[in-house]
Amino acid sequence: MMPFLRTVFRHGALPVGIVLLVTAFGGVTGNAALGAAAAGACRTVNLFAEELPPGPGGDARLGFGLSPTRATIPGPLIELTEGDCLKIKLTNDVTAATLQKLKTKFGGDPDLPLAVSIHPHGVKYHRDSDGTVSSNSFVPPGTSRVFTWIASPGTAGYWWYHDHVVGTEHGTGGMASGLWGGLIVRRPGDPKPDVRTFVLAMGDNYTFNLQTWPNTPTFVAVQGQRIEFLVFAWGNETHVFHLHAHSWADNRTGIPQPGIDTATVDTKVLGPSTSFGFQVIAGDVSGPNNWMYHCHVQFHSDLGMMGFLRVKPVA
Amino acid sequence: MMPFLRTVFRHGALPVGIVLLVTAFGGVTGNAALGAAAAGACRTVNLFAEELPPGPGGDARLGFGLSPTRATIPGPLIELTEGDCLKIKLTNDVTAATLQKLKTKFGGDPDLPLAVSIHPHGVKYHRDSDGTVSSNSFVPPGTSRVFTWIASPGTAGYWWYHDHVVGTEHGTGGMASGLWGGLIVRRPGDPKPDVRTFVLAMGDNYTFNLQTWPNTPTFVAVQGQRIEFLVFAWGNETHVFHLHAHSWADNRTGIPQPGIDTATVDTKVLGPSTSFGFQVIAGDVSGPNNWMYHCHVQFHSDLGMMGFLRVKPVA
Amino acid sequence: MMPFLRTVFRHGALPVGIVLLVTAFGGVTGNAALGAAAAGACRTVNLFAEELPPGPGGDARLGFGLSPTRATIPGPLIELTEGDCLKIKLTNDVTAATLQKLKTKFGGDPDLPLAVSIHPHGVKYHRDSDGTVSSNSFVPPGTSRVFTWIASPGTAGYWWYHDHVVGTEHGTGGMASGLWGGLIVRRPGDPKPDVRTFVLAMGDNYTFNLQTWPNTPTFVAVQGQRIEFLVFAWGNETHVFHLHAHSWADNRTGIPQPGIDTATVDTKVLGPSTSFGFQVIAGDVSGPNNWMYHCHVQFHSDLGMMGFLRVKPVA
Repeated sequence: MMPFLRTVFRHGALPVGIVLLVTAFGGVTGNAALGAAAAGACRTVNLFAEELPPGPGGDARLGFGLSPTRATIPGPLIELTEGDCLKIKLTNDVTAATLQKLKTKFGGDPDLPLAVSIHPHGVKYHRDSDGTVSSNSFVPPGTSRVFTWIASPGTAGYWWYHDHVVGTEHGTGGMASGLWGGLIVRRPGDPKPDVRTFVLAMGDNYTFNLQTWPNTPTFVAVQGQRIEFLVFAWGNETHVFHLHAHSWADNRTGIPQPGIDTATVDTKVLGPSTSFGFQVIAGDVSGPNNWMYHCHVQFHSDLGMMGFLRVKPVA
Repeated sequence: MMPFLRTVFRHGALPVGIVLLVTAFGGVTGNAALGAAAAGACRTVNLFAEELPPGPGGDARLGFGLSPTRATIPGPLIELTEGDCLKIKLTNDVTAATLQKLKTKFGGDPDLPLAVSIHPHGVKYHRDSDGTVSSNSFVPPGTSRVFTWIASPGTAGYWWYHDHVVGTEHGTGGMASGLWGGLIVRRPGDPKPDVRTFVLAMGDNYTFNLQTWPNTPTFVAVQGQRIEFLVFAWGNETHVFHLHAHSWADNRTGIPQPGIDTATVDTKVLGPSTSFGFQVIAGDVSGPNNWMYHCHVQFHSDLGMMGFLRVKPVA
Repeated sequence: MMPFLRTVFRHGALPVGIVLLVTAFGGVTGNAALGAAAAGACRTVNLFAEELPPGPGGDARLGFGLSPTRATIPGPLIELTEGDCLKIKLTNDVTAATLQKLKTKFGGDPDLPLAVSIHPHGVKYHRDSDGTVSSNSFVPPGTSRVFTWIASPGTAGYWWYHDHVVGTEHGTGGMASGLWGGLIVRRPGDPKPDVRTFVLAMGDNYTFNLQTWPNTPTFVAVQGQRIEFLVFAWGNETHVFHLHAHSWADNRTGIPQPGIDTATVDTKVLGPSTSFGFQVIAGDVSGPNNWMYHCHVQFHSDLGMMGFLRVKPVA
């Protein structure tokens, strides 16, 4: 029933730090394909919810992957263009025993089913793809279910997706374990970054992508490249994202619109579940350096909620 | 001196859940009239601060009503159009004993007068309508006072009003007891919703409108109807409003403006006293369902800070 | 080595309340000069980090000043125009003993150097002006170092600057002690206020500019004057700025743009390190009064996080 699980533990031990980054980026290689569905037609991808080696203190770690052996935290970045739709066949390879433990730990209702789900932000979906208990759209262990996301006009943005049923009916245990990933909907004609999108999840216990420094991702770009960040938050805490030496327009893309007096920002408040993204030119004016990104809540950064964007000089 | 008080207890016991909703909407029936004042002329309405049956643990519950028997939590939604002005004759039917209890509970200064007031956000007002102790504009028990709000050009927005003197000079006890309501200022030509505006106050103790699930309001609309939310926060906590399967532009109305790259959002961070609103088409693309709204701070939603927008299919 | 220190204590004892305001404004007198640098040329100013008399409970107080005797909390407001650059020669007059105490108190790493720095938001800078330990750009006691800020096109905004190395590598001890100030970058043609910009730092322990009521600044203007607020936050807490009887567009300047449906706000959520500013007409429509500004987190305002904008009638 759970044929992939052993494989995950054999081949897919959760990498840390920069290695996690590379592995996470591995999950992104299917993005071009994900975004290629023509309007009206729905492309199908497979997604797997997997158990990963536990985190500090033995906390459960769960991840989404495009194959059972490639589950990562965060899960694969999904990119769509307005007009696309996407059918995600989600297979739940998490054991009932693990789900029960999380339900006990997070205080879920006795009648909460043991299952995982996937709930997206920003895009549209019907009742059967809500990913909630109340909409009866979840995936028991050892089974699969199709969720359909519709990137209708107006949905362009930097979003995320997450489990909504593990631990509690709001997915508190699923999110604490890592069941989330980034979702981008582009508008036709939007510029694309020169390097893979940098995805950061700001969460409980002062973590980026469930890690603290020095295990947080180091993102690498060459000065002058167009880079893109997607930042989202999960859990219980308020965070403030700050990137040194770069700033962006506080709008849909981060790119200023001439004549529109949108504020420019280099910090952004996030409450749980808010997300944003931006494109900037790496090292523009500021030049090469290991530029720090961090939560600007002081005790969060002091406890390790930080990492670096390495802007390399042009060769 | 307090002729209405017994009436409130006889006829106006605080309804719960969906019934509260209907009663709250009952208070809205005067909206068209409230908004009808011509520019330059000030229409007058009567507003009453009333004692309501206590909440869980015996906490005081106070409400505003267009008549003494119709006090609700939240108070009546007040709608204006830029150019309007409104004179609110506020009668304080709350006893000095209750106000003293709240002053003791919330630690107000010894010289804090026993009174209620009404302080609006977004609109303009003179010193005598500030609703503060420092501006000497409050209403002792058994008396009335007129507050004048001026919806001058530029004040269009989704706002709220609240007491500013009960418990402390910042109205902490008044707000904790329910002395607040929604306020909308429209620009001439703004679209109006097809059903009454859905008003949600996110507050302390994981509450919407001082209730937790299953006593939070269920809002009802038919797929395709234009609906409108007004959401504000009070108290001490940061909240994140999320509505499933709908999204809106992060601007004045929620309606995207062509050519302007405003971010689209489906979650919104609120600190105490911030407010926002938006119009969307119920079930657009997503179709009928009981779509969840909730605070996305996980422990808030897990403790009951949630409810539903019921989108019914077209008959 | 620290020739100015005694002078500070003799002449520069930290003023409180309205006097602090005046003194802080004293630091602003150099602003016109600071903003006068032509594009391409870098003007140099001297900045000094100084010890000030301790705060309540003996907490260290440190301030920036344009001269050693004029260090204030907040430090001098720095105004630039897009196209400017500014070289800041920062002299560290804080003793190693004081820096060691702060390192111990805030739990800085054993290898954290004893130093101060200056890190700006919004503008651009090279690695050697980052103001961090990781970029090796800090100032040991008794020494000076030049930091260069580049207000390149697109950097216009209401920003702040702060130490990034005292106490911890994130400057948690420097910020708690007062090592910060306001920074404005204007776009050519932006209107300027009729009176000096009102600068407010919302921080830990319910403070504006490290003070609680009645020691918070009272800002004074005449009805009809164009006034300007710059508000930023530091520390660990989320705050909500509210000003009575005034509102502003939620954009770069606070001034509405015709035809753009930006939300109008009179409250603003700030997480640590976010900043914003706005221009409004003092007492417009609302008239003269002592209009309260305060944090709208109720227990913050109840504990003294408030002050007044005194709008005087036209003589």
